[in-house]
Amino acid sequence: MKALRYLEHGRRPELVDIEVPTPGPGQVLLKVTAAGVCHSDEVVMAMPEEQFLARGYSYPLTLGHEGAGIIEAFGPGVNTSFSLGDAVAVYGPWGCGRCHSCSTGAENYCTNAAAEGIRPPGLGAQGAMAEYMIVDDVRHLLPLGDLDPVQNVSLTDAGLTPYHAVKQSLPKLVAGSWAVVIGAGGLGHVGIQLLKELSGATVIALDVTEEKLEVARHAGADYVLPSDADAAGKIRELTRGLGANAVFDFVGAQPTMALSQSVAATGADVTIVGLAGGTMTVGFGLIAFDAAVRIPYWGTRGEMIEVFELARAGRVGVQVQEYSLGQAPQAYEDLHAGAVRGRAVIVP
Amino acid sequence: MKALRYLEHGRRPELVDIEVPTPGPGQVLLKVTAAGVCHSDEVVMAMPEEQFLARGYSYPLTLGHEGAGIIEAFGPGVNTSFSLGDAVAVYGPWGCGRCHSCSTGAENYCTNAAAEGIRPPGLGAQGAMAEYMIVDDVRHLLPLGDLDPVQNVSLTDAGLTPYHAVKQSLPKLVAGSWAVVIGAGGLGHVGIQLLKELSGATVIALDVTEEKLEVARHAGADYVLPSDADAAGKIRELTRGLGANAVFDFVGAQPTMALSQSVAATGADVTIVGLAGGTMTVGFGLIAFDAAVRIPYWGTRGEMIEVFELARAGRVGVQVQEYSLGQAPQAYEDLHAGAVRGRAVIVP
Amino acid sequence: MKALRYLEHGRRPELVDIEVPTPGPGQVLLKVTAAGVCHSDEVVMAMPEEQFLARGYSYPLTLGHEGAGIIEAFGPGVNTSFSLGDAVAVYGPWGCGRCHSCSTGAENYCTNAAAEGIRPPGLGAQGAMAEYMIVDDVRHLLPLGDLDPVQNVSLTDAGLTPYHAVKQSLPKLVAGSWAVVIGAGGLGHVGIQLLKELSGATVIALDVTEEKLEVARHAGADYVLPSDADAAGKIRELTRGLGANAVFDFVGAQPTMALSQSVAATGADVTIVGLAGGTMTVGFGLIAFDAAVRIPYWGTRGEMIEVFELARAGRVGVQVQEYSLGQAPQAYEDLHAGAVRGRAVIVP
Amino acid sequence: MKALRYLEHGRRPELVDIEVPTPGPGQVLLKVTAAGVCHSDEVVMAMPEEQFLARGYSYPLTLGHEGAGIIEAFGPGVNTSFSLGDAVAVYGPWGCGRCHSCSTGAENYCTNAAAEGIRPPGLGAQGAMAEYMIVDDVRHLLPLGDLDPVQNVSLTDAGLTPYHAVKQSLPKLVAGSWAVVIGAGGLGHVGIQLLKELSGATVIALDVTEEKLEVARHAGADYVLPSDADAAGKIRELTRGLGANAVFDFVGAQPTMALSQSVAATGADVTIVGLAGGTMTVGFGLIAFDAAVRIPYWGTRGEMIEVFELARAGRVGVQVQEYSLGQAPQAYEDLHAGAVRGRAVIVP
Repeated sequence: MKALRYLEHGRRPELVDIEVPTPGPGQVLLKVTAAGVCHSDEVVMAMPEEQFLARGYSYPLTLGHEGAGIIEAFGPGVNTSFSLGDAVAVYGPWGCGRCHSCSTGAENYCTNAAAEGIRPPGLGAQGAMAEYMIVDDVRHLLPLGDLDPVQNVSLTDAGLTPYHAVKQSLPKLVAGSWAVVIGAGGLGHVGIQLLKELSGATVIALDVTEEKLEVARHAGADYVLPSDADAAGKIRELTRGLGANAVFDFVGAQPTMALSQSVAATGADVTIVGLAGGTMTVGFGLIAFDAAVRIPYWGTRGEMIEVFELARAGRVGVQVQEYSLGQAPQAYEDLHAGAVRGRAVIVP
Repeated sequence: MKALRYLEHGRRPELVDIEVPTPGPGQVLLKVTAAGVCHSDEVVMAMPEEQFLARGYSYPLTLGHEGAGIIEAFGPGVNTSFSLGDAVAVYGPWGCGRCHSCSTGAENYCTNAAAEGIRPPGLGAQGAMAEYMIVDDVRHLLPLGDLDPVQNVSLTDAGLTPYHAVKQSLPKLVAGSWAVVIGAGGLGHVGIQLLKELSGATVIALDVTEEKLEVARHAGADYVLPSDADAAGKIRELTRGLGANAVFDFVGAQPTMALSQSVAATGADVTIVGLAGGTMTVGFGLIAFDAAVRIPYWGTRGEMIEVFELARAGRVGVQVQEYSLGQAPQAYEDLHAGAVRGRAVIVP
Repeated sequence: MKALRYLEHGRRPELVDIEVPTPGPGQVLLKVTAAGVCHSDEVVMAMPEEQFLARGYSYPLTLGHEGAGIIEAFGPGVNTSFSLGDAVAVYGPWGCGRCHSCSTGAENYCTNAAAEGIRPPGLGAQGAMAEYMIVDDVRHLLPLGDLDPVQNVSLTDAGLTPYHAVKQSLPKLVAGSWAVVIGAGGLGHVGIQLLKELSGATVIALDVTEEKLEVARHAGADYVLPSDADAAGKIRELTRGLGANAVFDFVGAQPTMALSQSVAATGADVTIVGLAGGTMTVGFGLIAFDAAVRIPYWGTRGEMIEVFELARAGRVGVQVQEYSLGQAPQAYEDLHAGAVRGRAVIVP
Repeated sequence: MKALRYLEHGRRPELVDIEVPTPGPGQVLLKVTAAGVCHSDEVVMAMPEEQFLARGYSYPLTLGHEGAGIIEAFGPGVNTSFSLGDAVAVYGPWGCGRCHSCSTGAENYCTNAAAEGIRPPGLGAQGAMAEYMIVDDVRHLLPLGDLDPVQNVSLTDAGLTPYHAVKQSLPKLVAGSWAVVIGAGGLGHVGIQLLKELSGATVIALDVTEEKLEVARHAGADYVLPSDADAAGKIRELTRGLGANAVFDFVGAQPTMALSQSVAATGADVTIVGLAGGTMTVGFGLIAFDAAVRIPYWGTRGEMIEVFELARAGRVGVQVQEYSLGQAPQAYEDLHAGAVRGRAVIVP
């Protein structure tokens, strides 16, 4: 079968021919119907090789941590109510399934994964950018039902990650509150929708191009602002001097993190989702009192079900740009060039 | 001045001439700009006289616990940043201001009010259905700013009460959840709006007339159903057998409470807001596990600020039917006859 | 092997000889080291036969939903880091593992269990009162490590059930709050310990005999009271008229539920854990405002891990009365006669 | 009367003779019975003068933001159920009383205080280190009842501040969790008690001297460790590699903040309470995922009531070292020299 693989440090991912894998005990084989392209793949491929290896990654790595497919085969001993042919999406942040975090569905925070070499598909295990993929356990499958895999596959990360981030802040986003979203890209444009659908907050979205601001407007932002030197002042003005009750930085670069810090209201949540390498220095007088700064990672199994239910209700959707598996290398080039609007999805 | 007063057990409220009151130490005199008409006034006037007296009410009682006005005068010793002429709304569930509940703004649950004879305006103290009214403490005033008093006065109860009820259930109303609202009257039609604005729930609204169902639809309900013998079955069907994650019964009659009980999902909130005299018998096997049944009363000071901010953002509004002070007796007749759509408001 | 089985409606459970079962795909066989005796077994055996069958139970039923053992064998396809010989406790409320509830570890509220015929060991599936037992999935095993199985097996229900009940109420049990525990038996005496260890509440415990009150004192209750006609008045007095912020009724009979209802403070949690067949009628004026009444069932996988960690820290323990498997019928007689102090545990 | 005043930049506080103040409208005059000495007074006096003035402070400033007293007189228009002669403690973080924060009792986060020149006693307004003090509003008084003012006055800050910090983290401090407290001084030794009384966490306390570690042990710490280069490793070991679920840094210096950052578990709370001028740089890879860093300030009115109730139940207490008003300058010298064990209290 064809698979898009990262073969060697410094090489761009390539389409190669490999064997269709065979599911082992407890595993499931999917015929892939859709696989999402994500910035974090770029982050992984841009890592110094030592860091790449230290995190337990190895070559060759089939990319793709957003996956959907049709159940093609079960390995031995799979005890399930799923049937062959069922359409499913894949919960990506695989964990051990038995630690305290995993017991609550927070496999994204599994405390045994590193020690046991358990890694997400496309981020250690072989991923979804191929004609077939292996899912390690049936609990990582979510029934898609009528939901279109291409339109919805990205909910497994570009939906789940902002949902996890936003959900934690909902208690602070009461009626009359303010939320700031920085970055209206693949995750950010979903974050804006989620804030509008799930909270009483007025949403201010920031990005650097008019095109992205238009995406933000379309996603439901109440205000859009260029992410420039005037942004903090304008947010202070809109919020009558109080700042925002929650800030979601989907970029995570030095200037966006500085902006996030400066516009946080007393008691706000400041959530850094983007991986652009920025840092923030906090201390007495450097940030509002009781503003909580945190850096989340992906989301839980329960949250993934919730996101898909929201999609089923027509209340959240990812803007998708389709590519064939053959065009997958091009998709990464386009992403790199900032030329993807919403989310790129590979359709094998 | 003119005031609408309940004068004697069994008599309908009457418009009478009384002296303009003088604010005492710490008090504020308002020139009333709007006063809302509420079902609970009817409940008070329908009480057996012993119960009326036992609750500390006495004759004559100026009605009106939803009030808005202009600050006309301050009593001695009022230390405030409000100015004469400021437009304000009145937080109604007055408390002692110092007990644990009041310290958190939950004056609706003041633990000293009964013992100290502190009662809300129109529900013990003299109310807002007059040309002037006394507010006992400046902390019970909320600046209206640009908000129209007639359109918004009812937020002080018909907005605050459903907001308090809904806000408690928001943690259960995650993406993909279901909420049921029974009764699309004065409070219910606001409750529907709040659920849609503040949560990820799909909202099913029930009422008995097509006109009320139309109000529910207009308020944003995703589904509307006649509140009849088939309702429970239809709700089960819509929710794929699971029931609703939160039920708000704005009627509180025997059949609506039975319906509420029967459609609650495991772990749901069942909140009875209406005062129509129903009861519910719970026990093992009679209601879903961990479904929490409760009967709230009004709301907190902080919640009232939140509701008004939501109105300021244009995300919640009360459907208002205006009456002059002279027409106030008629407003109660119309309410009694079920002929008020939304909320009746007296404009002195 | 020997197993204690409920063989027929109306018969007391009997020790019989049966085959050692063979674990199927995904299953695990345990050599049982301890099995707890529970009131709910009595409830099941006292059910009218139609009800017993309607709930999906069938004869013969090996009792025992509190189980601990040593891993003896894995069925085909079990993919796990557990090893043969590991000491484990069994999470009892088995669910489907994939619904929204199960995804968060709340298998006790699995939404597919009934439809798919999934039932807890001893409560539908064959239970722990035997030399060997089958566990349906490796995720239902918790490593015991150094913890003694006999002393701790009952934490799987007599610990987990009160923990689940208490944990939900912790946000209301702030410093200075009051908790009432009715019934200091198998679950209640653990509930008292949990409240003392986990909350700032002052704990008032009630029971009917001086011996049980002594158990309550020993478990850490700040006040103990006979559960009689004066109890409500005394609780009101202790709480300066406010009532308790949380009431846990581990009996669930008509008089204890009436007491629970009457001593609940505004905004309290009223949690009915016991199954003695009582009911409570709520409505306006019949219970304090915003007091939430609910009936929980068992607990989640994450909560079970938490309970065992608390035991590991030496902060909670079950008072245990040991019986051999041969004495198991006697254990049920003693339980029935109210002659068990703490929890009876069968040691095969 | 005598008052301890900060008179001029760079001078140590001095005891001077001033007029007994007269309470204005809405104010209350207290005869002081106890006043606590706090590190933050030192911080204020060590500020560069421009900063001191920029924060709205001015000379002469009577110190003392922890105050207790007897009601001596009411100003005009005070409407209260308090009586002359009542023993009270003073809630210190005064706010406007009407903004959203103040409406919920969080006057420590008043959004109008700065603009309206409202400042706490001893930190802008004239403080408690005098024979008499003015309290701006009756809502800032808490009845002491039988509680000894000298033993309990410090609960108004040294109790309230750690309580506010700890209370926010309680949902993360489930059974089996771990809490780290850095610094067993005036606030820290109360923080340890609170964690033990209110949560299921195992508490690890750190400080630099054996004497302080003994204070920590006495306060209930499960483990005490020298706060040195080995501390992080030992904490990782104790927590089986996972780190702590909540870290409370009551020092706030560079090394303690570095330690706090390094031992935080995934999803932990990292709360910096101490004002020793440290900073922390967060970003991807620099701190555990979803660990929330925040810097709280004091506490709310409701929380202060809760702390005093806990003291009333005998579950929290401040270790007090008494000084007369004449010895007050010495108390500050002792504090500066690190020679105060627990909290210094001035008794006029």
